[in-house]
Amino acid sequence: MSDFREDGALAVDWVASYLERVGELPVLSQVEPGQIRAALPESPPDEPEPFSAVLADLDSVLMPGLTHWQSPRFFAYFATTASEPGVLAELVIAGLNQVGILWRTSPALQELEELTVDWLRQLVGLPDGFTGHIEDTASTGVLAAVIAARTRLPDRRVLVCSEYAHSVGEKAARLLGLELRKVPTDDEFRMRPDLLGADDACAVVATIGTTGMTSVDPVPEIADRCAENATWLHVDAAYAGSAAICPELRHHFAGWERADSIGVNPHKWLGVPMDCSVLWTSREEEFRRAFSLVPEFLRSPDDAVNLSELSIPLGRRFRALKLWAVLRCYGRAGLQELIRDHLRLAALFESWVRDEPGWEVSAARHFSLVCFRRQGSDEDNERLLESVNASGEMFLSHTRLDDRYVLRLAIGNFRTTEDDVRLAWDVLRREAAAL
Amino acid sequence: MSDFREDGALAVDWVASYLERVGELPVLSQVEPGQIRAALPESPPDEPEPFSAVLADLDSVLMPGLTHWQSPRFFAYFATTASEPGVLAELVIAGLNQVGILWRTSPALQELEELTVDWLRQLVGLPDGFTGHIEDTASTGVLAAVIAARTRLPDRRVLVCSEYAHSVGEKAARLLGLELRKVPTDDEFRMRPDLLGADDACAVVATIGTTGMTSVDPVPEIADRCAENATWLHVDAAYAGSAAICPELRHHFAGWERADSIGVNPHKWLGVPMDCSVLWTSREEEFRRAFSLVPEFLRSPDDAVNLSELSIPLGRRFRALKLWAVLRCYGRAGLQELIRDHLRLAALFESWVRDEPGWEVSAARHFSLVCFRRQGSDEDNERLLESVNASGEMFLSHTRLDDRYVLRLAIGNFRTTEDDVRLAWDVLRREAAAL
Repeated sequence: MSDFREDGALAVDWVASYLERVGELPVLSQVEPGQIRAALPESPPDEPEPFSAVLADLDSVLMPGLTHWQSPRFFAYFATTASEPGVLAELVIAGLNQVGILWRTSPALQELEELTVDWLRQLVGLPDGFTGHIEDTASTGVLAAVIAARTRLPDRRVLVCSEYAHSVGEKAARLLGLELRKVPTDDEFRMRPDLLGADDACAVVATIGTTGMTSVDPVPEIADRCAENATWLHVDAAYAGSAAICPELRHHFAGWERADSIGVNPHKWLGVPMDCSVLWTSREEEFRRAFSLVPEFLRSPDDAVNLSELSIPLGRRFRALKLWAVLRCYGRAGLQELIRDHLRLAALFESWVRDEPGWEVSAARHFSLVCFRRQGSDEDNERLLESVNASGEMFLSHTRLDDRYVLRLAIGNFRTTEDDVRLAWDVLRREAAAL
Repeated sequence: MSDFREDGALAVDWVASYLERVGELPVLSQVEPGQIRAALPESPPDEPEPFSAVLADLDSVLMPGLTHWQSPRFFAYFATTASEPGVLAELVIAGLNQVGILWRTSPALQELEELTVDWLRQLVGLPDGFTGHIEDTASTGVLAAVIAARTRLPDRRVLVCSEYAHSVGEKAARLLGLELRKVPTDDEFRMRPDLLGADDACAVVATIGTTGMTSVDPVPEIADRCAENATWLHVDAAYAGSAAICPELRHHFAGWERADSIGVNPHKWLGVPMDCSVLWTSREEEFRRAFSLVPEFLRSPDDAVNLSELSIPLGRRFRALKLWAVLRCYGRAGLQELIRDHLRLAALFESWVRDEPGWEVSAARHFSLVCFRRQGSDEDNERLLESVNASGEMFLSHTRLDDRYVLRLAIGNFRTTEDDVRLAWDVLRREAAAL
């Protein structure tokens, strides 16, 4: 085992050095498609190589092909962080290599998963009628929720979401052969419950913090409509759900306690490395009815309930360990402080945009995402985005709102400081002036 | 970053110590349901705790609730290994926290994934018409393949597999609202192609190395029937596929190159930590047609193809890095040596059972799994299994073959030696004598 200790020291040092310098690396990879693969051998080696050779190639071959999600100036999509306790927990997870299939294949995995998703439930202020488990991503979580809904209401063939909902709803509908109905939104990009028409729907996906502009669907009114029609309500709070840890932000989450299922991704805004998406439900029995299938070779003498009876994959990683590590090493206070700071930085950036002639804020800001644009054409804004991203100094993404091209600055990396946000604004104005 | 280096050293030391002593720990956890959770705080902490506190609780609270998949005497289900380069690669994966959504969100992730699944394709001797990607588990891989098949043949509502196929087929059928037809098997538990009836099927799942007893469906004949009816053929070689790295075992895989899709799990028999399930297809376009959906907020100026257009989750981990590390640090020769040794050990155990009065081998052995039983009733064998597992000295599982209860000894952990297998046999005879 001396090799493992030696190689482990090298690996820890490599990661530590990476995290020390990640702020200086070009955020968006600047390689051409195919460039990384072309620099690697076409065939696997016949003979063993040392682990140090793998680390060496990370630097010399792969590094230019990385887009640095850990950079403090990654502002695209939703910014994420693999926090230090989360990263080290992944090492332990891999070392233990627990495979959660049945309870008995790892009682600690299953019970820690049940516990940590309950801890998170308490942190975000959901009532104790919800139980939960961890999925890889919200795509899978939404798909699983819709499968549970369809098992309950097999004759309804419609899935409903807003026109600004994430594409996961559309994907779930397509994969399951359901019809998707996109409900129009009001002038703040919120689903209009008066146009919901839930009576033929097996499920409605409402979003708190849509991907495009973090709008908040009117969940109380949607829940009323769903209740009238016995329609399943899934609340997708993949990004914004973490913000409910701060009591002063809970008003955005009014009514979500009436959902049949809720998704929140700790791998987005809570410092947990990819992947960790929590799915709660107040109808665990319906999930079991949809997913439970225990073949003979998996029958066991205990009568414990198995997490694999609630989701698509049969085996699961010990993801709970990283969620546990992060919740403990930050604590409620630490996570609140980070989220509040991200909102402060977003408000600051928003104020700069609002006060600058020739720029405009494009959507109401609820959390840590600012949607904005330069006055002018869509093409001007698209060119601006591309030149900013090509600089390597930061990485932004875009969306379309009311059919206009809009830039998105998403704050969510734990290392982002006011200096980083100020630099972003400087680069944006510099590149805009140069166009 | 000094904390990360310090905590990292603690974590490496913890994992190294764990792997040094894992052979001495009770293999199957002996706790009662609820025991682990009851030993942990019901609510999350308000204030931060050090990472060392997490490691301390791993020892003092979680350890009894672990079933030790890394133990050399884990012989249940299919034995797996998180090899040392694979474990350390997970540390790097988490440190980089790449999120593969679009090519540009991590060109290195996507291109290394395409490369490593191609390396594995070459290692197992598949032709170059197959491209691939990594799924979490074979459950998801089979589901994805059936979704692709159903997209191609939307009017066919039947999924076919053998009566001894893994439950993943049944689960996929249920989740997608398809009818499952289980085809009877011959006296070696192989699907009978003459009873296939593929003309109304959208897909047939054939298995090379079934979970129960590693039987091998007659893929060439099944492929003929599928070709006649334009039915999608998925070959599930989740466990056994790794054995195709050894040319002398390739005969078991005759015909799999005619499949539309094939699944092999490097997290089973190739030393890659959970989770890493490779899904190849000769019909990538059909996968794209089923899964591709790029919303506005994900459009990018490059015209690269994105791996997220081929599978259920939108975002993926940098799993390719651990597959790459393992393929390089073992090399073709190293992996062949391990697999051959596992087959040697399985043959040895099989010979002991065969030569011992009162015991019998219950199914032909093709790979590293031995199915056997003590002559006597099912209840006798079930009691034997429970007493062996309760001893903590080893962990076996069971299945039913021809409606008889049968014990399974699966060899697949890289640390398993002849001494471990001999101990297993000694414990089995000791416990049988004591009953």
